[in-house]
Amino acid sequence: MVKKEVAVGIDIGGTNTVFGFVDIKGNILGKGRISTTHYDEIEVFIAALYEKIVIASQKIGNDIEVIGFGIGAPMGNINKGTIEHAAGLPWKGIVPLSDVFNRHTNLPVIVTNDANAAAVGEMVYGGAKKMKNFVVITLGTGLGSGFVVDGKLVYGNDGFAGEIGHTAIRPGTSNRDCGCGRKGCLETYVSATGLKRTLLKIMADSIEPSELRKYSFEELDAEIIHEAAKRGDHIAKKAFLHTGMMLGFKLADVVAHTNPEAIFLFGGLALARDLIFKPAKEYMEKYLLNIYKGKVKLLPSELSTHNAAVLGASSLAWSLKEL
Amino acid sequence: MVKKEVAVGIDIGGTNTVFGFVDIKGNILGKGRISTTHYDEIEVFIAALYEKIVIASQKIGNDIEVIGFGIGAPMGNINKGTIEHAAGLPWKGIVPLSDVFNRHTNLPVIVTNDANAAAVGEMVYGGAKKMKNFVVITLGTGLGSGFVVDGKLVYGNDGFAGEIGHTAIRPGTSNRDCGCGRKGCLETYVSATGLKRTLLKIMADSIEPSELRKYSFEELDAEIIHEAAKRGDHIAKKAFLHTGMMLGFKLADVVAHTNPEAIFLFGGLALARDLIFKPAKEYMEKYLLNIYKGKVKLLPSELSTHNAAVLGASSLAWSLKEL
Repeated sequence: MVKKEVAVGIDIGGTNTVFGFVDIKGNILGKGRISTTHYDEIEVFIAALYEKIVIASQKIGNDIEVIGFGIGAPMGNINKGTIEHAAGLPWKGIVPLSDVFNRHTNLPVIVTNDANAAAVGEMVYGGAKKMKNFVVITLGTGLGSGFVVDGKLVYGNDGFAGEIGHTAIRPGTSNRDCGCGRKGCLETYVSATGLKRTLLKIMADSIEPSELRKYSFEELDAEIIHEAAKRGDHIAKKAFLHTGMMLGFKLADVVAHTNPEAIFLFGGLALARDLIFKPAKEYMEKYLLNIYKGKVKLLPSELSTHNAAVLGASSLAWSLKEL
Repeated sequence: MVKKEVAVGIDIGGTNTVFGFVDIKGNILGKGRISTTHYDEIEVFIAALYEKIVIASQKIGNDIEVIGFGIGAPMGNINKGTIEHAAGLPWKGIVPLSDVFNRHTNLPVIVTNDANAAAVGEMVYGGAKKMKNFVVITLGTGLGSGFVVDGKLVYGNDGFAGEIGHTAIRPGTSNRDCGCGRKGCLETYVSATGLKRTLLKIMADSIEPSELRKYSFEELDAEIIHEAAKRGDHIAKKAFLHTGMMLGFKLADVVAHTNPEAIFLFGGLALARDLIFKPAKEYMEKYLLNIYKGKVKLLPSELSTHNAAVLGASSLAWSLKEL
């Protein structure tokens, strides 16, 4: 019997790591997850992850054959197979991810950042199937981006293209600390965490009542704020408006760099739809040069939030096999 | 006798239009120029330009054969052969440049913006010969940029990638009008004109003496300010420092988008060398994410200011012939 080939796509997020077994058509035959934050040592994390993957593969049965592993991770470097100085992960400095992974398997392991993986996923399975020039912005714990130019993912000279989450919105004018050690980075405003921080700032300045005043910072998340905004909570709505505005500013910059056909928003924050898309679109258009105005689509990712990065990561493994 | 093939490279600048006859090796066999600002009608301008080109070609002699025309112009669109809404040129709206040009010749005419042309010139003849990922920033009357990713010029979906001169440095906080109709665009600070504007601002705020207080705005240019700064004029030095700082802010953003190996500065302002490179490098490094720090070269263009855009434009015509 011929075994069905699958690629394992792994998405290492700030909170959880998700993996899936994906066939060449993009069908997910099995999935699993493991906490990212519970492992201080990368070796222990990878060992635990690999064990989970093996157990999950056994559950699917004997008729699959793994051809390789694609890993999306913050600050993942495709040239070196490393994670380097990822602010949102427990492991500091330069982490030799593919080397550690290859202690468990001889199969190919390819690493890139989760946003690049999501961009490949959008191109292979999602809304960018027929597009040659587009950008995916991932809005999770932080903000990532993947640029596709002329049908190919942009890696850059050091393998680190697309880290726009760490560009300043208004250089030198913000007091908001970023996990990267600097101040005022885009992701301190535009991400699930950024939304919470903006909410607290507005709550501090305003005397308006809000159902969210009963929540601690730790209890709050994008979904709670989204639900409150839908019920008409003024402070929640203002937090989304400000977040969308900041995103819109930066999207105008993004367009001026590579002039994409579309920008896809992906991740938890993008699920708030109009609350984030409306101000983002309005301020993007406001700050766009006239030659770009009205031409760039701002779209929600067509991949489900959990599967996109896994699909993207897995498609990297497929592309490696075909080389 | 076999005639020597040449491509005509044309650089349409805000003030002057320069052209040259370039062989396949990049030798310039003849050059000419015409004022850009003296022609309100594009048809009259092109007719005058074409006549100048014909006369110049006759001076070179009968042993050359023109194979095509490459034109670099602000807001030049390679997909459509147009100039669209170029703030710094006398012709408004969408100008069908290649169509008008083709009333005079049946040879191929290819149009792109002057910064893209300069980037191709840097790649073919200059300091980027061995580079796959780099950016050229042109600092003239305005600010243009050309992005090369994986050895290919980035055009974008609408043919307008790289218009970073019209991104805002600090959105919503600047009163400085831009020719594009908005406020606070990068080129209102970082360009020969931007330097002059910053100088006047500093002169207005300061009571320090300066040899430049005797010049009118119209009399001033980047070279006069450069000479004054070299003689130790405080206000001239401050104007360069501020200009370099603003450039550095934006270069950090540029790096985060496409992670280039190098950024080349091209044009009159770049000739001031340390006065512009030192603060630009310092602030770029300050605003770079740690994974990029110390890795991106900031270099002067290796092409002479006048020839780079002509060479770049001409190389577009050669590439067209080879297709």
